[in-house]
Amino acid sequence: MTDPVEQGYFTEESSADVVISRNAGAEDARLKEVMEVIVRHLHAAVKEIEPTQEEWMKAILFLTDTGQMCNDWRQEFILLSDVLGVSMLVDAINNRKPSGASESTVLGPFHVADAPERALGDDICLDQKGEPMLVRGRILDTDGNPVAGAKIDVWQANDEGFYDVQQKGLQPDFNLRGVFRSNERGEYWFKGVKPKFYPIPDDGPVGKMLGALGRHPFRPAHLHYIIEADGFETLVTHIFDPDDPYIHSDAVFGVKESLMATFAPVDDPERMADAGFATPFLEVEHDFVLAQS
Amino acid sequence: MTDPVEQGYFTEESSADVVISRNAGAEDARLKEVMEVIVRHLHAAVKEIEPTQEEWMKAILFLTDTGQMCNDWRQEFILLSDVLGVSMLVDAINNRKPSGASESTVLGPFHVADAPERALGDDICLDQKGEPMLVRGRILDTDGNPVAGAKIDVWQANDEGFYDVQQKGLQPDFNLRGVFRSNERGEYWFKGVKPKFYPIPDDGPVGKMLGALGRHPFRPAHLHYIIEADGFETLVTHIFDPDDPYIHSDAVFGVKESLMATFAPVDDPERMADAGFATPFLEVEHDFVLAQS
Ligand SMILES: [Fe+2]
Ligand SMILES: [Fe+2]
Repeated sequence: MTDPVEQGYFTEESSADVVISRNAGAEDARLKEVMEVIVRHLHAAVKEIEPTQEEWMKAILFLTDTGQMCNDWRQEFILLSDVLGVSMLVDAINNRKPSGASESTVLGPFHVADAPERALGDDICLDQKGEPMLVRGRILDTDGNPVAGAKIDVWQANDEGFYDVQQKGLQPDFNLRGVFRSNERGEYWFKGVKPKFYPIPDDGPVGKMLGALGRHPFRPAHLHYIIEADGFETLVTHIFDPDDPYIHSDAVFGVKESLMATFAPVDDPERMADAGFATPFLEVEHDFVLAQS
Repeated sequence: MTDPVEQGYFTEESSADVVISRNAGAEDARLKEVMEVIVRHLHAAVKEIEPTQEEWMKAILFLTDTGQMCNDWRQEFILLSDVLGVSMLVDAINNRKPSGASESTVLGPFHVADAPERALGDDICLDQKGEPMLVRGRILDTDGNPVAGAKIDVWQANDEGFYDVQQKGLQPDFNLRGVFRSNERGEYWFKGVKPKFYPIPDDGPVGKMLGALGRHPFRPAHLHYIIEADGFETLVTHIFDPDDPYIHSDAVFGVKESLMATFAPVDDPERMADAGFATPFLEVEHDFVLAQS
């Protein structure tokens, strides 16, 4: 008897070994390693699922539709990665932080590279729509020392859940975006409006899948941050409204317990005047701790 | 301390659990089960691979390109399933046979539903190109009894590795295809030409992947069969030329040890005359054993 695997012949029992052994001549050692892991898990999953031919074809057509939904404006495979928690997992693996440092979350598709630099205290809401908010906090190192001159790039959805780039013509350019610098005490503060939860695009195959799984497409309200400072690892993260209706069910799993901010209503006239508001506002406070690079 | 998973918050450690728990409300129990297996293996694979953001993006773009390569004539995700051994595994899972019965292999994309019925002994090669071949054998049950009247649908590539449907206008319609019926002794025989190995389509993302893995795109020479008989499971299979240069490295893993036929050269004038050949020919012999349904 010959060994079927050695001969390159297929058997159900050693299906993964037969496939993997075929890559023996791959020049790229990393690709070879990656494909081995993928083939092992793929075959193990198929053996657990035991799909019918019809189920296999459904999977083929789902992947095909997902690819065909992609264009210059829409990346349905990234959406699929997002809703399966893969994007967050890759982010976590690539951004393990030392104890005490702020945690990362996904960048998301709405960052704009050249947002204007603004002065501390400026209002990033350029159309006066929404519930006013004062956002404040400190940039610290893991020993609790202030980090001065950190570049703080923030962006957020408006009170209807839309980013400026999704509503060109309806919102002013660079609405609800700005780049700030922490002062010598590590402090930052700016004005904005309370962001609203919003759906990821759900009119494609991924949206249909979410529906079939009994899942909604919403992300809880959040503010995005990229914080950079010399000598520190860049931090890409969000802060979240802990009272958002979707805080426990972010469609893309971006929420981490440490990323909750406080959204405290302020209606004391003296504090309103101090902060430069004519009306009550929300005070959003969150400190960020950067990891040394 | 709250339990992050219960709260729906992401943690690297329990990433798969967080994602799976989100499907609690899925109405389709099978879909829920399938997604749980997929998410567990997907997250386990990502944790083993620890992809960089660039590697993750490469995977996203590979899947996107694969989807965008698909059209009415080309199914690149089926090709991907084929070259990763998944198609063969799904085939094996759905066609487990009792001991002694002939094994199945993949159908492939070149079957044509309405091939002409032919008489035993007919030549399915309509253009006289290639090395002549007499194909013969018996259809049996698992006790060794002949199965009379079995429908034997055969198709094969020509001596250049092309099916008729790939060379419309260059080959006669239904060249190298035919439907035969076994006689009362379970016997079948017909004439054809020796098939040649052929490449799967390799001008797309899957072909590029094969190249990067040091793999060729070829399938070893084979004849396709679908054998149907009342009271028996339909058998979809190939027989292979054991001397083919790619017999140990079928790009789609279709080769099983039990599917080897013999291709014996015959140049004895009497046997040539008996078989109806004016020239030497190859005698290809293979019996098929059907499983009771
Ligand atoms: Fe966002
Ligand atoms: Fe074929």
